[in-house]
Amino acid sequence: MSDSQLEFLKQLREALPMAAKIEDRREALLENSRDFGQLVGEPVLPLAVVYPQTVADVQNIMRLSYEHGMPVISRGAGTGVSGAAHVTGLCIVMNLMQLNRIIEIRPEDEVAVVEPGVINYDLNEAAAEFGLMYAPDPASYKMSTVGGNIATNAGGLRCAKYGVTRESVLGLDIVLADGRLIRVGKNTFKGVAGYDLTSLFTGSEGTLGVVVRAVLRLRYQPVDERDVSIVFPSLEAAVMGVQSIARARVQPAILELLDLPTIRILDEQYQTDYASRGGAMLLVRLDGYGAEKEETVIREAFSDGPMTLSSSGAPEATQLIEMRRTSRGDTKDDAYRMGEDVAVPKSLMAKYVQELRKIATAHDVDVRVIAHAGDGNLHPTLSVEPESGENPLIRLSEALEESIRVAIDMGGTITGEHGVGLIKREWLTWEQSQDVIQIQHDIKSLLDEKNILNPGKAI
Amino acid sequence: MSDSQLEFLKQLREALPMAAKIEDRREALLENSRDFGQLVGEPVLPLAVVYPQTVADVQNIMRLSYEHGMPVISRGAGTGVSGAAHVTGLCIVMNLMQLNRIIEIRPEDEVAVVEPGVINYDLNEAAAEFGLMYAPDPASYKMSTVGGNIATNAGGLRCAKYGVTRESVLGLDIVLADGRLIRVGKNTFKGVAGYDLTSLFTGSEGTLGVVVRAVLRLRYQPVDERDVSIVFPSLEAAVMGVQSIARARVQPAILELLDLPTIRILDEQYQTDYASRGGAMLLVRLDGYGAEKEETVIREAFSDGPMTLSSSGAPEATQLIEMRRTSRGDTKDDAYRMGEDVAVPKSLMAKYVQELRKIATAHDVDVRVIAHAGDGNLHPTLSVEPESGENPLIRLSEALEESIRVAIDMGGTITGEHGVGLIKREWLTWEQSQDVIQIQHDIKSLLDEKNILNPGKAI
Ligand SMILES: Cc1cc2nc3c(=O)[nH]c(=O)nc-3n(C[C@H](O)[C@H](O)[C@H](O)COP(=O)(O)OP(=O)(O)OC[C@H]3O[C@@H](n4cnc5c(N)ncnc54)[C@H](O)[C@@H]3O)c2cc1C
Ligand SMILES: Cc1cc2nc3c(=O)[nH]c(=O)nc-3n(C[C@H](O)[C@H](O)[C@H](O)COP(=O)(O)OP(=O)(O)OC[C@H]3O[C@@H](n4cnc5c(N)ncnc54)[C@H](O)[C@@H]3O)c2cc1C
Repeated sequence: MSDSQLEFLKQLREALPMAAKIEDRREALLENSRDFGQLVGEPVLPLAVVYPQTVADVQNIMRLSYEHGMPVISRGAGTGVSGAAHVTGLCIVMNLMQLNRIIEIRPEDEVAVVEPGVINYDLNEAAAEFGLMYAPDPASYKMSTVGGNIATNAGGLRCAKYGVTRESVLGLDIVLADGRLIRVGKNTFKGVAGYDLTSLFTGSEGTLGVVVRAVLRLRYQPVDERDVSIVFPSLEAAVMGVQSIARARVQPAILELLDLPTIRILDEQYQTDYASRGGAMLLVRLDGYGAEKEETVIREAFSDGPMTLSSSGAPEATQLIEMRRTSRGDTKDDAYRMGEDVAVPKSLMAKYVQELRKIATAHDVDVRVIAHAGDGNLHPTLSVEPESGENPLIRLSEALEESIRVAIDMGGTITGEHGVGLIKREWLTWEQSQDVIQIQHDIKSLLDEKNILNPGKAI
Repeated sequence: MSDSQLEFLKQLREALPMAAKIEDRREALLENSRDFGQLVGEPVLPLAVVYPQTVADVQNIMRLSYEHGMPVISRGAGTGVSGAAHVTGLCIVMNLMQLNRIIEIRPEDEVAVVEPGVINYDLNEAAAEFGLMYAPDPASYKMSTVGGNIATNAGGLRCAKYGVTRESVLGLDIVLADGRLIRVGKNTFKGVAGYDLTSLFTGSEGTLGVVVRAVLRLRYQPVDERDVSIVFPSLEAAVMGVQSIARARVQPAILELLDLPTIRILDEQYQTDYASRGGAMLLVRLDGYGAEKEETVIREAFSDGPMTLSSSGAPEATQLIEMRRTSRGDTKDDAYRMGEDVAVPKSLMAKYVQELRKIATAHDVDVRVIAHAGDGNLHPTLSVEPESGENPLIRLSEALEESIRVAIDMGGTITGEHGVGLIKREWLTWEQSQDVIQIQHDIKSLLDEKNILNPGKAI
């Protein structure tokens, strides 16, 4: 450690009260050195991990880091899957998990005010006492933080109906690169005073400021929920099924698509046997006062043909949704397996999957797909056997790149909900023009002229 | 006209094809010199009004204006109510009403691609052929343009359920101050690649770029719609009614609140007699598969007590919603009447109206209120009789300012949906800190360093 680094740490300790823990044990450094995204090479350790307990702590940390030009990676639960929280060079990690109070829930305003380290699940538990919910529900909701959800503009299962994180964020308190605290947005559902800085910070992956407090819109817990699982003979048929549901003008709360390889994995994990029944599955949740009618409409829509529907009221479909929710990502991506996150216009989902399979075959890699089908957001997982054939890693990366290019060619995006992070930065230049990327860099420089906020990520 | 102005106009004519009309008749200049917002003093005429027919026209206009440092006010239908389209000095007005093609509707993607001059109503008509709708519906929807709606992030009646304009804007083509064309956002429902520039341009009131094309999310037309009007003895009771509906976990598509003076105006305009029945009214629209159940729930919630409900299926409530939709703003604000647009946390609506009445009494001005009650967005209209008492205009402006300060003190905003424009710029400094305002000016400078895009507005 250099003298200036030692000096920085010394000043950091002095600037913070006892309660704000500073960690430099190797174990803690390692744990905070990366997220769930693929890591190329060895992990890089941060200089230290700081756990601010108050907003003032965050301000002090940023003030000092600004003075010293020390990069800071804000970190929630580290469940990100695009390497946005990866350490890549000299920096400290500011772990916000202990800044985790639910400041207030105002049930009559349908609003919650929280610190960033609150776990998504905990907020939902607290809101449930008032018959309310915080709608954005990434599959990581039992682990990930609201601050991380905001910084990635996380999606989730029920965002087809209720919108992504951005749609639930009314206002934010942000600590800027130099330690100043600002408040953007509003306390109310609507508000158009000035530019929409709230949306600018939402999804900016810790590169523009640190979220230290959020005013969130809550929604009514649905009075009724009905789950239906539908097994189709093929993936194409399941995608047609998505269109049928749309044509029936039903807006499900959840509409998940699973392909055969994914079903097989669930079968293995949960000792079930859905794979024998067909080639793809839709998991549908209908909610609210219309749920009963919508269930009827959907059952009618799929009454003839080779589909198998779960019986009404049986726990099966609900279990499957839970399985789907908790199935993915238990293991991190590694060199031989990459999870993707493209989104394409809804009508092109079947075509996209066909292309994907062609690509997989051409490069001799495996592919499985789950999709937030209501949004056209697909999560293909491409993988190779480490020992198989020639240059497995090259085959994998070629297949991956082609799969991204095809999505872009179809008018899609490289990332529907996971963010650009570190891993998708190059692909961003495939999707966006140089002018658009330049504007983002200019905004970044404006707010972080020393480039200390999670440098090298997101844009 | 100075030589340089003449030279600019000459070059403008040369740069544009015949089809792109340039107007300098006084009548056209006058018509394009202001919006529906209050005008202080005499109208200022622009140098010329240009009607681009193509995106290339817009680029040429901006390129030339950039070279000459000529300010440009983008203009849709001019129905704005905050003076955002007012001419305040030397400039040209770029009227986008003729750039009005619906480029495509992709029903299976639930997406429309439009030019900015398309009238909101026309887009809805076109979408209806596919059983779809464009949800944002400002009461001006028969006149206002989609481009203007985007530039103001317009709200509307059904945004409590379906969100404001921003929630329906997926991607934008923007012509920048120097004439460059960029594409931001996405074609898909979800997408988090890079910073959210789409939201930055949405609501920026023509100060950051010109919207020349928009990819919009459409929603399903509801399979069922049920309207209920409820007359309450008092405004306080009606606001309690809003809470009762929320507690019943019903999310109406429309939930409008009318106070007694507003009801009297409707009565006058439509020869009805609702004023005799009570002191305030809620207009409720329930839609979708749950509408029938929701209607039952609402009727039960208000079954005892002094409320009068329209009978089920009767045309009355629907007519009232139409009346409400078309009642306001037929006449522009003037010196003696100011329409406001605050939003407060939902639970404080009743308290806010009480304060408002106190303020009105104290300053001897009249007040009436309508509200998008589902959002906590209130439109008080304050007015004085020109001949009444001492200094009517001072009384009005003092009452107005107090009404704004009280909204801010309650955690509200100066503008729920109309925008800051010219008229609310000073108030913005009451709501937002100097740091936050500075960031917005910095972003403005970044994108428009010559300050030619609708200068002096929005921030
Ligand atoms: C099993 C599993 C399932 C998942 N399912 C989904 C899903 O359905 N939808 C989805 O969108 N994502 C999903 N993800 C990805 C991930 O959970 C989300 O991106 C989540 O929002 C990250 O939250 P986090 O608290 O873990 O943030 P982290 O991973 O710690 O950080 C993510 C980014 O946010 C920044 N950040 C964190 N906190 C702050 C803050 N307070 N201020 C500023 N910047 C901050 C970090 O610097 C980093 O750039 C899943 C991940 C896993 C492992
Ligand atoms: C009767 C009436 C009812 C109304 N009801 C509502 C309501 O319910 N909800 C609501 O939110 N508003 C309402 N308004 C206000 C107004 O209709 C909205 O603000 C509307 O969005 C303005 O659209 P426009 O086409 O008239 O835009 P204009 O008034 O022409 O312009 C508004 C702003 O947008 C900019 N602009 C316009 N087009 C573009 C473009 N293509 N690119 C860049 N900038 C552009 C202008 O420079 C200006 O700053 C109402 C107004 C009236 C008169």
